[in-house]
Amino acid sequence: MKAPVRVAITGAAGQIGYSLLFRIASGAMLGPDQPIILQLLEITPALKALQGVVMELQDGAFPLLAGIEISDNPLEAFRDTQYALLVGAMPRKAGMERGDLLSANGGIFKPQGFALSEVADRKVKVLVVGNPANTNALIALKNAPNLNPNQFHAMMRLDHNRAVAQLANHLKVEVTHITQMTVWGNHSSTQFPDLFNCHVNGKSAIDLIKEPMWYEDYFLPTVAKRGAAIIESRGLSSAASAANAAIDHMRDWALGTKNGSVSMAVYSDGSYGIPSDLMFGFPCESINSQVIIVQGFGINEFAEGRIKITTDELIEERDTILSLGLL
Amino acid sequence: MKAPVRVAITGAAGQIGYSLLFRIASGAMLGPDQPIILQLLEITPALKALQGVVMELQDGAFPLLAGIEISDNPLEAFRDTQYALLVGAMPRKAGMERGDLLSANGGIFKPQGFALSEVADRKVKVLVVGNPANTNALIALKNAPNLNPNQFHAMMRLDHNRAVAQLANHLKVEVTHITQMTVWGNHSSTQFPDLFNCHVNGKSAIDLIKEPMWYEDYFLPTVAKRGAAIIESRGLSSAASAANAAIDHMRDWALGTKNGSVSMAVYSDGSYGIPSDLMFGFPCESINSQVIIVQGFGINEFAEGRIKITTDELIEERDTILSLGLL
Repeated sequence: MKAPVRVAITGAAGQIGYSLLFRIASGAMLGPDQPIILQLLEITPALKALQGVVMELQDGAFPLLAGIEISDNPLEAFRDTQYALLVGAMPRKAGMERGDLLSANGGIFKPQGFALSEVADRKVKVLVVGNPANTNALIALKNAPNLNPNQFHAMMRLDHNRAVAQLANHLKVEVTHITQMTVWGNHSSTQFPDLFNCHVNGKSAIDLIKEPMWYEDYFLPTVAKRGAAIIESRGLSSAASAANAAIDHMRDWALGTKNGSVSMAVYSDGSYGIPSDLMFGFPCESINSQVIIVQGFGINEFAEGRIKITTDELIEERDTILSLGLL
Repeated sequence: MKAPVRVAITGAAGQIGYSLLFRIASGAMLGPDQPIILQLLEITPALKALQGVVMELQDGAFPLLAGIEISDNPLEAFRDTQYALLVGAMPRKAGMERGDLLSANGGIFKPQGFALSEVADRKVKVLVVGNPANTNALIALKNAPNLNPNQFHAMMRLDHNRAVAQLANHLKVEVTHITQMTVWGNHSSTQFPDLFNCHVNGKSAIDLIKEPMWYEDYFLPTVAKRGAAIIESRGLSSAASAANAAIDHMRDWALGTKNGSVSMAVYSDGSYGIPSDLMFGFPCESINSQVIIVQGFGINEFAEGRIKITTDELIEERDTILSLGLL
């Protein structure tokens, strides 16, 4: 049996955390032969509820679960951690301005970036799930001077999976037949799910769509507004599908992508003309736990326009956190 | 790839359902090579919320998820199903008498048993999770004349896993080192988790416990009252650990027990002197998808007294549903 690895999860008593922890403990993220120590972070008022979650984790009698630690201090929760899923964040409330939202999240991700930089394993992989995920990840990595920016990702995988599911349903194909789906840019309504580079059984996805306006008039808004549609139907926000996407992302990062590229928001290296200092959704592959941005995808005029919109939004968010002193 | 199997789940929009569906869709229950069609049953007022859960399942882009159907009619939801997890039930409310509770649940499990009998696959495996699980299962099977009573189980696995976890924690051993744990009787506070027949690394568990009163004064009440302790801490009842136990039970039933016996409530065949016409927690093994009650466990005087208490409770529940015309 392998030595246990340490997996830190923030917002562990929340809805996404509740959908995430048991799957991680069962081996769904890092495989059936990898023991895990969970290091769970919550705000102080949620520690009692988290203790109840810990009891349930114990009651899972998971063979791979080698230990559980809880804390309200990131300097404790992140100690020696090899994987960190930053789920806890301040959601946007009605009437909240972007500056207020980013300021509130800066109060979370700035100290968490610092703590990861100070105490996490030097090879830690950090996935930011809590929204606004891209800019929260940027805040964290900018406050983690002892870590490499490429150790921080933000999650585009829920958008990616939603896009795959919508396309598979429309074309009546299995999800596994869809490759090279890319959701470019920000995990927000400006995201750009790209069907020009996407393949279905090796054929161009866009060429398989018979109805000329389906892509723009149905697919793009459906994927972008899926979260709101789920809230409307369930009465609660997406938790299990978000947790599932986090597992997909981290598993691919840790164990390697198996079926071509997937969408991950990573620190821009200037690929595709995207400014550096942005966390941007790109087509990515993971080989030997190293993520690379796949080059050479075609960007036509339509795509260029959409990518500019989401880039501009991320630049605005970056400028806002810069002005707030969060970088 | 194997042909898809049909898995029906009742109460699919509830808390346990939400923890269960995504794990089943990911292959955690029936293995990584078994495609699944989910057939989800809910009461009519919950169908809208269920539709939101379905959207999230689609957004999982699960390679094994070959279809999702929803209905408020068990004659539809159970059609051709090979596995049925009956999760939805009427919980006991403050001040509710046993007769009221069983009467309300009879209104659920009598028509569900009938529907399974009419439309399910002839080899369907039915696991009752909704409480009072043992007697709900008895109602269902008694109303399913076209099925064999041994196609119905009730879930003891959450109690079983809780008992394993408490013992492992006390003895500082891994959960996988514990074998032959048995929780006898009813999934209720009268349950009897048996450490006399339980082994730890091949040694008698009871002999390894140094503190003479730990078993009776700490272990037994802690396992029996675990659900209440979790509600007190989380503010919500056990959902993810219950879902996990349901997965463990059904996986072991379908794919076989791997590590000796586990606790399952099955239709008594008179083993260990338990009256027939009861759904009773026994030590069980599954071989080629057939569950057998393991014979030859020693029953000492203490165990006999405890087993009598839980048996008497189940007889009372049976007599109540008999008098209510539910059998």
